[in-house]
Amino acid sequence: MSAIDLNCDMGESFGEWRIGADDALLRLATSANVACGYHAGDPSTIERTVRAALQHRVAIGAHPSYPDLVGFGRRSLKVAPDELESLVLYQVAAVQGIVRASGGVLHHVKLHGALYNDAASDPRLALAAVRAVRRLDADLLLYVLAGSPMAHLGRSEGLQVVEEAFADRRYNPDGTLQSRAIEGALISDPEEAAAQALDIALRHTVPTTEGGMIQLEAGTLCVHGDNPAALPVARRVRETLESNDIELRSPPRVLPRPC
Amino acid sequence: MSAIDLNCDMGESFGEWRIGADDALLRLATSANVACGYHAGDPSTIERTVRAALQHRVAIGAHPSYPDLVGFGRRSLKVAPDELESLVLYQVAAVQGIVRASGGVLHHVKLHGALYNDAASDPRLALAAVRAVRRLDADLLLYVLAGSPMAHLGRSEGLQVVEEAFADRRYNPDGTLQSRAIEGALISDPEEAAAQALDIALRHTVPTTEGGMIQLEAGTLCVHGDNPAALPVARRVRETLESNDIELRSPPRVLPRPC
Amino acid sequence: MSAIDLNCDMGESFGEWRIGADDALLRLATSANVACGYHAGDPSTIERTVRAALQHRVAIGAHPSYPDLVGFGRRSLKVAPDELESLVLYQVAAVQGIVRASGGVLHHVKLHGALYNDAASDPRLALAAVRAVRRLDADLLLYVLAGSPMAHLGRSEGLQVVEEAFADRRYNPDGTLQSRAIEGALISDPEEAAAQALDIALRHTVPTTEGGMIQLEAGTLCVHGDNPAALPVARRVRETLESNDIELRSPPRVLPRPC
Amino acid sequence: MSAIDLNCDMGESFGEWRIGADDALLRLATSANVACGYHAGDPSTIERTVRAALQHRVAIGAHPSYPDLVGFGRRSLKVAPDELESLVLYQVAAVQGIVRASGGVLHHVKLHGALYNDAASDPRLALAAVRAVRRLDADLLLYVLAGSPMAHLGRSEGLQVVEEAFADRRYNPDGTLQSRAIEGALISDPEEAAAQALDIALRHTVPTTEGGMIQLEAGTLCVHGDNPAALPVARRVRETLESNDIELRSPPRVLPRPC
Repeated sequence: MSAIDLNCDMGESFGEWRIGADDALLRLATSANVACGYHAGDPSTIERTVRAALQHRVAIGAHPSYPDLVGFGRRSLKVAPDELESLVLYQVAAVQGIVRASGGVLHHVKLHGALYNDAASDPRLALAAVRAVRRLDADLLLYVLAGSPMAHLGRSEGLQVVEEAFADRRYNPDGTLQSRAIEGALISDPEEAAAQALDIALRHTVPTTEGGMIQLEAGTLCVHGDNPAALPVARRVRETLESNDIELRSPPRVLPRPC
Repeated sequence: MSAIDLNCDMGESFGEWRIGADDALLRLATSANVACGYHAGDPSTIERTVRAALQHRVAIGAHPSYPDLVGFGRRSLKVAPDELESLVLYQVAAVQGIVRASGGVLHHVKLHGALYNDAASDPRLALAAVRAVRRLDADLLLYVLAGSPMAHLGRSEGLQVVEEAFADRRYNPDGTLQSRAIEGALISDPEEAAAQALDIALRHTVPTTEGGMIQLEAGTLCVHGDNPAALPVARRVRETLESNDIELRSPPRVLPRPC
Repeated sequence: MSAIDLNCDMGESFGEWRIGADDALLRLATSANVACGYHAGDPSTIERTVRAALQHRVAIGAHPSYPDLVGFGRRSLKVAPDELESLVLYQVAAVQGIVRASGGVLHHVKLHGALYNDAASDPRLALAAVRAVRRLDADLLLYVLAGSPMAHLGRSEGLQVVEEAFADRRYNPDGTLQSRAIEGALISDPEEAAAQALDIALRHTVPTTEGGMIQLEAGTLCVHGDNPAALPVARRVRETLESNDIELRSPPRVLPRPC
Repeated sequence: MSAIDLNCDMGESFGEWRIGADDALLRLATSANVACGYHAGDPSTIERTVRAALQHRVAIGAHPSYPDLVGFGRRSLKVAPDELESLVLYQVAAVQGIVRASGGVLHHVKLHGALYNDAASDPRLALAAVRAVRRLDADLLLYVLAGSPMAHLGRSEGLQVVEEAFADRRYNPDGTLQSRAIEGALISDPEEAAAQALDIALRHTVPTTEGGMIQLEAGTLCVHGDNPAALPVARRVRETLESNDIELRSPPRVLPRPC
């Protein structure tokens, strides 16, 4: 029986503002990417999210971003690699500490938004992020875009890399994601997302915007928490995978080394 | 031979803006309170400061604050205790992670500015801060205003408390610090500060604004990094203490417990 | 036939985060208090809100706050009066410029949240805010808590003051608002809010938390945009007032003086 | 006798942090570009700077930026043109209001840092900025990189454009500025800067990094306030120009139209 992880972004509220259906998604996801305060999330939101994820036994990841609350981390910012290393270090450390102080262990790191995309293709940014993660805890898993140069780079630097595919995003023929600026880049039909999830998990392929299929090896599937249809999409993806004998579980983190 | 710690606030630059003579103060101080990004400091500044402190073998503390860059953390903000616990947790965790990722161990926590003063007198705020520190690492030392209710509360909650006195601030007769809004509240004459430091370290007393002396038991002495005369003050304080056979060293942190 | 203004806070979204039912409320309110970017609102949100208000011919006010996005401007911050004057000047000027660049004229200023409350009772803060408004445009109306010292002070400094009462907040016997920290401080039952609005507009009285009634002269009624029941409350308030022959209209701003 | 404007960035302090020698530069410059709070400056700093500029009869401009305090506005941020229009509108309006409230008239707008460079070459960004300025006040002067497409675009949209050259920056052969990331891109030798200023003002040429000269028509010369040598550079530039019979004065703003 094969298995795959189902990850969702969470903790993306900020102060009085609410985004996402975290409580419901925690019942469906097997891992949660928790915003670190730079594109979303504030200390109280992070702590509340971490506690809820621990209660639901969902693996907790840190989800660092460019510093850009008003743009929700979706706008590229020309950050120098050494600055990026410190930025990622700070954000992941903050969430890691809150997880530990709440009785858990941080499981993974997944970059957010424009930083996720920029690092997927720019090896200097990828290396800066990889170093920040490794320096903090070399047993943290690193979630990266499946097939991206960053996957290779992360492994060559000694990290455990989990390649990620998207149930609710359309793919360009070169394996990159279609820009969210394009109408329809986000799949909101639960059936369509579930079919794409099944392609990925079972057949290791994904359809592209030009009608073909490309190969893809993914250890984790993402459903976006800010997709307005996040809940029905996640539910249908989960049902479809389970009814096809694919187990949903988070990838194992090796035992924490003594710090 | 008696001993005392000499602590300075550091890492209080922000982006392009510089405050403080950190490099020179690291040669004089025995412990450094590193700004966590909320009143000053940014991830790159924090990392640079932590590396410099490690090189100089100066004990590193986290210096969390109310979120108030433009006010430098000097303005009281009515934060609810549970929000404060998360705020302190986030900031200390971020700096602790950067210290660990740089090969060191975080030594202590000292609240900054208005938060330091508010927590010294409001037990709900003090308790929130104490809990944040204990949840993160129960071996962290807590630097607090000597004689304040927070000193007692920190100990009763199981933390190692180090009581702090100020070489370069004037004291009200009740042991609180004279407000910086009052002209002359900051002592900029090195001789005067050194004399006050000697009173504190040797005689366990400090002069007050009304001319008397009060008793004070302090394990650490502070010289403010943003005091324009910080460097000559710190130098004279150090010389005076050493020539009076008072050793300058940071208080011991017990061995880190397994996390 | 008597008349009263119905004002709502608007433009309190921020980046991707949404708060409030601005589009629907613009059909019910006669004046809008637009967040200026310090507790909520960003330049794009402000501009969108201003355009919508102009389309609906709703009078536009600026709604300045303490700088506190994460706390939504609801936490007191100890700002010095001269700093507050600059803070209010900056925020009102920004919104005023956007209104003018969009073809309108700024109508009024209403302080937000903790600043509204603090200035209502602290004459130094009230004076700082009054001066900022008068320096920008002496014809701007100033909305203040009915019966507060700030109402008197605003008039004595030459501003046109509009006293405000709340349809959806409970009153303490001394005329101050019950703290939102207290359960039930916000009235969410449309009938109850409409009855209170009618008391205020028709009888110039309002019930208090202790069961009595106090007198109140108000030129404007507020319904909170972030009240989860804002829409039904505003609708019922409007219907009730109109069916009692009370006209809903914004107070006149005198003609703009040449700048 | 020919004339040229000498502009400096000012008001780039933030809270407790200080940058720039504004008081001294106000004695040398004929126009000041005042930071608007997005890369530097806070409301109190803006007001203080505006007052000082009015006292010294220096023409006041707004200096809007990408929102990036920690990066001092020097990092490109992928902002959509319509968002940029609102961003510029907000910042210029805030400073314009503070100038007016202080008894002055805003004279010009100059984009800051990465936004200045990005808009110089990207006509969609240039157009967004031009529209924001024109909507606020069509008589505002627009300072732009001499010879850039934005100069042409600003004029074709009806604004009065003042082309700018730099006394203390090196030029690439295509007329763009050498990146500040390159060592030596900032000229700190007062004699060299003064010679370059004279070339620009008298001969309408400027030397390039490859040893040649290019033609340049400039109505204003910039000396960077954050150049560590700003003061001696500005002084020598001024002396050199004056001793060559070039008058230093700000370009005239036409009379304010009725708003």
